[in-house]
Amino acid sequence: MFGFNYYTPTKVVFGKNTESKVAELIREFGGTKVLIHYGGGSVVRTGLLKKVTDTLDAAGINYITLGGAVPNPHLGLVYEGIELCKKENVDFLLAVGGGSAIDSAKAIGYGVANEGDVWDFYDYKRQAQGCLPVGVILTLSATGSEMSDSSVITKEDGLVKRGYSSNYSRPKFAIMNPELTMTLPDYQTACGCTDIMMHTMERYFTSGGNMELTDELAEGLLRTVKKNAVILRDDPKNYDARAEVMWAGSLAHNGLTGCGNDGGDWMTHKLEHELGGLFDVAHGAGLAAVWGSWARYVYKNCLPRFKKYALNVMEVANTGTDEEIALKGIEATEDFYRSINMPTNLRELGIKATDEDLKLMAKKCAVGVGGKGGSARVLDEEAMLAIYRASV
Amino acid sequence: MFGFNYYTPTKVVFGKNTESKVAELIREFGGTKVLIHYGGGSVVRTGLLKKVTDTLDAAGINYITLGGAVPNPHLGLVYEGIELCKKENVDFLLAVGGGSAIDSAKAIGYGVANEGDVWDFYDYKRQAQGCLPVGVILTLSATGSEMSDSSVITKEDGLVKRGYSSNYSRPKFAIMNPELTMTLPDYQTACGCTDIMMHTMERYFTSGGNMELTDELAEGLLRTVKKNAVILRDDPKNYDARAEVMWAGSLAHNGLTGCGNDGGDWMTHKLEHELGGLFDVAHGAGLAAVWGSWARYVYKNCLPRFKKYALNVMEVANTGTDEEIALKGIEATEDFYRSINMPTNLRELGIKATDEDLKLMAKKCAVGVGGKGGSARVLDEEAMLAIYRASV
Repeated sequence: MFGFNYYTPTKVVFGKNTESKVAELIREFGGTKVLIHYGGGSVVRTGLLKKVTDTLDAAGINYITLGGAVPNPHLGLVYEGIELCKKENVDFLLAVGGGSAIDSAKAIGYGVANEGDVWDFYDYKRQAQGCLPVGVILTLSATGSEMSDSSVITKEDGLVKRGYSSNYSRPKFAIMNPELTMTLPDYQTACGCTDIMMHTMERYFTSGGNMELTDELAEGLLRTVKKNAVILRDDPKNYDARAEVMWAGSLAHNGLTGCGNDGGDWMTHKLEHELGGLFDVAHGAGLAAVWGSWARYVYKNCLPRFKKYALNVMEVANTGTDEEIALKGIEATEDFYRSINMPTNLRELGIKATDEDLKLMAKKCAVGVGGKGGSARVLDEEAMLAIYRASV
Repeated sequence: MFGFNYYTPTKVVFGKNTESKVAELIREFGGTKVLIHYGGGSVVRTGLLKKVTDTLDAAGINYITLGGAVPNPHLGLVYEGIELCKKENVDFLLAVGGGSAIDSAKAIGYGVANEGDVWDFYDYKRQAQGCLPVGVILTLSATGSEMSDSSVITKEDGLVKRGYSSNYSRPKFAIMNPELTMTLPDYQTACGCTDIMMHTMERYFTSGGNMELTDELAEGLLRTVKKNAVILRDDPKNYDARAEVMWAGSLAHNGLTGCGNDGGDWMTHKLEHELGGLFDVAHGAGLAAVWGSWARYVYKNCLPRFKKYALNVMEVANTGTDEEIALKGIEATEDFYRSINMPTNLRELGIKATDEDLKLMAKKCAVGVGGKGGSARVLDEEAMLAIYRASV
């Protein structure tokens, strides 16, 4: 059993109409001039942005707005946001949206609070010494960025996608109204459920020992999302199912499901990052597309965990050898992904990758993890390429 | 599905020798003059207090000490602590111990940060507007006070035991080294496990609807503590089991196991509070002694929950009527308590209460909850008396 640190200071305000509390929450955390950062037009179309600005107007809180955060959010917009904040003396960032808007806001926060090029942090050159406070109104359950310490930014030049983590960027508050996720396309909902499950599975499949309590929490969370993802496929307006998935999304990535583990595996995420960098695919779908190939490549090195997962999460019958049970768990996971219209390989993801593409991704992925990475099984560039090739 | 707030800002530093980080953590949260508050002699005997003061000496952090916090901590010592802090310009409270030292430190923190009599908060007369920052080195897994917003203080005059909750008092950090709990008497360990389970069960047995995810987390936590309590009965020095119980203790009472529920039942705690006020019993043992009588009195009004608990936590076979399954779950819980040498009635607790005692406790309990209380079944004074009488 390892030691661990656990720090989740984000104040969560969860339930219907909770966005009406945004002004008092900004004030509680000292915001006087706000940059409202959002993504595409849905926040405008649904009237959410107007509701937020009306609330701030009524409370007498000054704000400016910056839209345009895209999936795999771009460094260019981060630079633009930093300049805007400095010019307008912004002291609080309000992200309205999903992971893209939140991650982009965190990067802007680093850029305002630290001298020099913000990309340095994402390029592992130095550590941030602070971050402008960030608050969140969440409209998409997926990345868990609303409580996490991490953000992922893509540098357009070379499509380099990198993550940076620091407690400074953990949001001060997260407003979570499950109703705000009801207008999502079904595909995005399924991508989100996949991402949530993968955040937990990355922490679960390790070779370094695990706490029983953490396993119980992780398995319970996985069962909950698995069940409610199917409910939402058939009934996208189901409030309770939206709520289950939304809260699971936060707990899957705030650190809770990894306490006492060895840090997790994370290679499915790393493999997908290169995919997302090169092809600009939806993150959750990209994870589903490579997970099966990763799992088949590593499961023999991490057999007790794959067996436990098969039995407790995928509810595979406890008969046959450990390897057979583990493989059935992998197959059941792929069946589940297909059942919610997620891909289980690159072809189903809609990507026609050449072998040169795969080699390039494996090379970039290996560089990104400093040569080798993973816990369930340590992977080098050759192993990464083998997994990419198996996932075509 | 209800909305909820969730706020757990405590920085948890968990694992072996983590107490060596106390100076840097105090500094991180701005402490310059510390009151080290502890309970009985065990903190002195084990050398922990000296280790802490040596660490602060080496770091050049000023401190004073105040021992003497007792189970069901007394208001008199709180007043003494407040005077001491004001006189010595203390700006940080370090509780070294279990719930008694932490709760007492929180009360001192309220008293220093607010004008007037600190008992007013515990007597429901007014709300605190702040609290001196509190840090914790935990030596007993039980109350969860190391991450919770609550503290319980006993006023010696009339033995009035009252709790007060506010986010201001949530500790800034909690140092949790499972090894520090290894010197506990077995009885205290078992009392702690009972308290931890009860914090989760109080949130679980409600009539107002529950989130599936919260149920999964609660049931997983209960299974973990139930299993590891038995391991610790036979092997008190088992580090892993100590770690499982210690982390479960924090998660059982920081709010996580109640998210989306209706606030919980809490009547077992209220019934025990009067018991503890009158007879000065160990809190965990007092809970075990009244829970069975409470459960039998209320289970028909909350049958789906008692059935679910029986199946998922106590692993009762799914045969017979719902009532039969629920009753088997209650019996299995009492069997479990007995297996770790916890009492299941007042006699086993070592208390010979007269019917006048029971009437007095029922009356005080009813006053304490404003006449009626509970969620699984709403109880009035008559119901409370019936439960006390059944528990003799």
